[in-house]
Amino acid sequence: MTMDPQRRLVPIADPADPRIAEFTQMRDRDLAGRGDRFIAEGRVVLQALLDAEGAGRRFVLEKLLLLENRVEGASDLIARVDPDCPVYVAGRDVLDAAVGFAMHRGILAVGRHLPAPTLAEFLDTLPDQALVVAACGIANHDNIGGIFRNAGVFGADAVVLDGSCCDPLYRKAIRVSVGAALRVPFCRGGSIADLVGSLAVHGFEIAGLSPRGTAPLASFRPGRRLALLAGTEGEGLPADILDRVSTLRIEQAPGMDSLNVATASGIALWHVASSMGRTEAL
Amino acid sequence: MTMDPQRRLVPIADPADPRIAEFTQMRDRDLAGRGDRFIAEGRVVLQALLDAEGAGRRFVLEKLLLLENRVEGASDLIARVDPDCPVYVAGRDVLDAAVGFAMHRGILAVGRHLPAPTLAEFLDTLPDQALVVAACGIANHDNIGGIFRNAGVFGADAVVLDGSCCDPLYRKAIRVSVGAALRVPFCRGGSIADLVGSLAVHGFEIAGLSPRGTAPLASFRPGRRLALLAGTEGEGLPADILDRVSTLRIEQAPGMDSLNVATASGIALWHVASSMGRTEAL
Repeated sequence: MTMDPQRRLVPIADPADPRIAEFTQMRDRDLAGRGDRFIAEGRVVLQALLDAEGAGRRFVLEKLLLLENRVEGASDLIARVDPDCPVYVAGRDVLDAAVGFAMHRGILAVGRHLPAPTLAEFLDTLPDQALVVAACGIANHDNIGGIFRNAGVFGADAVVLDGSCCDPLYRKAIRVSVGAALRVPFCRGGSIADLVGSLAVHGFEIAGLSPRGTAPLASFRPGRRLALLAGTEGEGLPADILDRVSTLRIEQAPGMDSLNVATASGIALWHVASSMGRTEAL
Repeated sequence: MTMDPQRRLVPIADPADPRIAEFTQMRDRDLAGRGDRFIAEGRVVLQALLDAEGAGRRFVLEKLLLLENRVEGASDLIARVDPDCPVYVAGRDVLDAAVGFAMHRGILAVGRHLPAPTLAEFLDTLPDQALVVAACGIANHDNIGGIFRNAGVFGADAVVLDGSCCDPLYRKAIRVSVGAALRVPFCRGGSIADLVGSLAVHGFEIAGLSPRGTAPLASFRPGRRLALLAGTEGEGLPADILDRVSTLRIEQAPGMDSLNVATASGIALWHVASSMGRTEAL
């Protein structure tokens, strides 16, 4: 299936070439939420996209656009690209004009996400012993990206997001996640109550992170299936949801402001992933 | 010492009024590193600045500029402002024109930092049982802000930064820290080797966070004086420094990318702060 990388390169000489229109329209918000297409940038993220595609994780690489002087260093990745996916190459002037100066890292891809049809079907794919992060109302791309990065680092099986969360495939979110938004399977949509209901039906213990949680994190021991529920900063999780789940608080110094939500997810994941044998043996 | 807030307000009608020149010049980088003056914005940050001033933490509030419709809600804070500090008030048109649309939150202050003369003198001020974060080569304001926020949340006594770290009093860093850059005493300057040397002379055990650290974090128990050393992302801490200190690794899933440095500081601080009795009793 491999192919000489040089033989498949398609040179682009005009920044307005319609074949690279998706890239020229991408200035940050443009592609977010438009169908399920997204822009992936940089070597690490392209690698994550190819890995996800190969692992059957519902991603398709549709187009690749490379700065000419990045081709040689990316030849290992180009060799993995499906023969049906075009690989365009352009010089710096063309790429800067097409995409915007400093808007790229010389490696750009258009990907497509084929999400699971329903949350229930998504949860059906998870293993018997499962660790999930459930994110609710996270509107900040740094925080979404950080949550995915932490989910990847600590070996979580999936992230589920309510419909009020921002898109983890938005460029900045992918970048902050260091590609984990493509590596960690996710499903997005519905209300918090929908998420909590579906997780419960699938046998998950649901632990809501809250500064006013009843149980201290350090003494918490998860069972076989755990969903860590993280809410928006400021407001936190709604009271009616906190009433329906068990709640954990990350012990902190008295009288201080609360943690950033992505950092809180990292602390909680470190603790529970150790208990669930997701991290290296001690 | 309190004063009727209304009586001390100085109206500003011209965006070019020289009395508010520091604010009009502040578009992000301008004040960073210029002497020791900085811009603080928003109610939470102004409160942190007033608290720090009151607690003798080497900060001076020099000027305050308020959007007229924020005066009433900020009257408790205005009442705490030193009588020598001018309090300017402007309408939205004037403030937007002076400072830039959406560049303010209706509450802006010019502060001045009076740093400790030397690192040794700074370390002399710390209590016998002490927890310090030592940051090296952190060039990203989000990460510096995040490290300070975590230091505050977990009751660390101080942050020390080598000279290659960015300024924690840069606007975005203060904002991300939610004011902790003003609440947690800090000292910045010198090389990593200087930091490590001074901390050792002051009786600190120095634990470097590194994905290749020899001891797993979960089994680490700190002594009376601990400095958690966090290096830049990507490169990490230099090898010659890692050879001179004990090293901790945050256990993670095999084969994954490493944590964000601010998140890593949060996980390590949560663990050691509990051991050192800095968090709520369990």
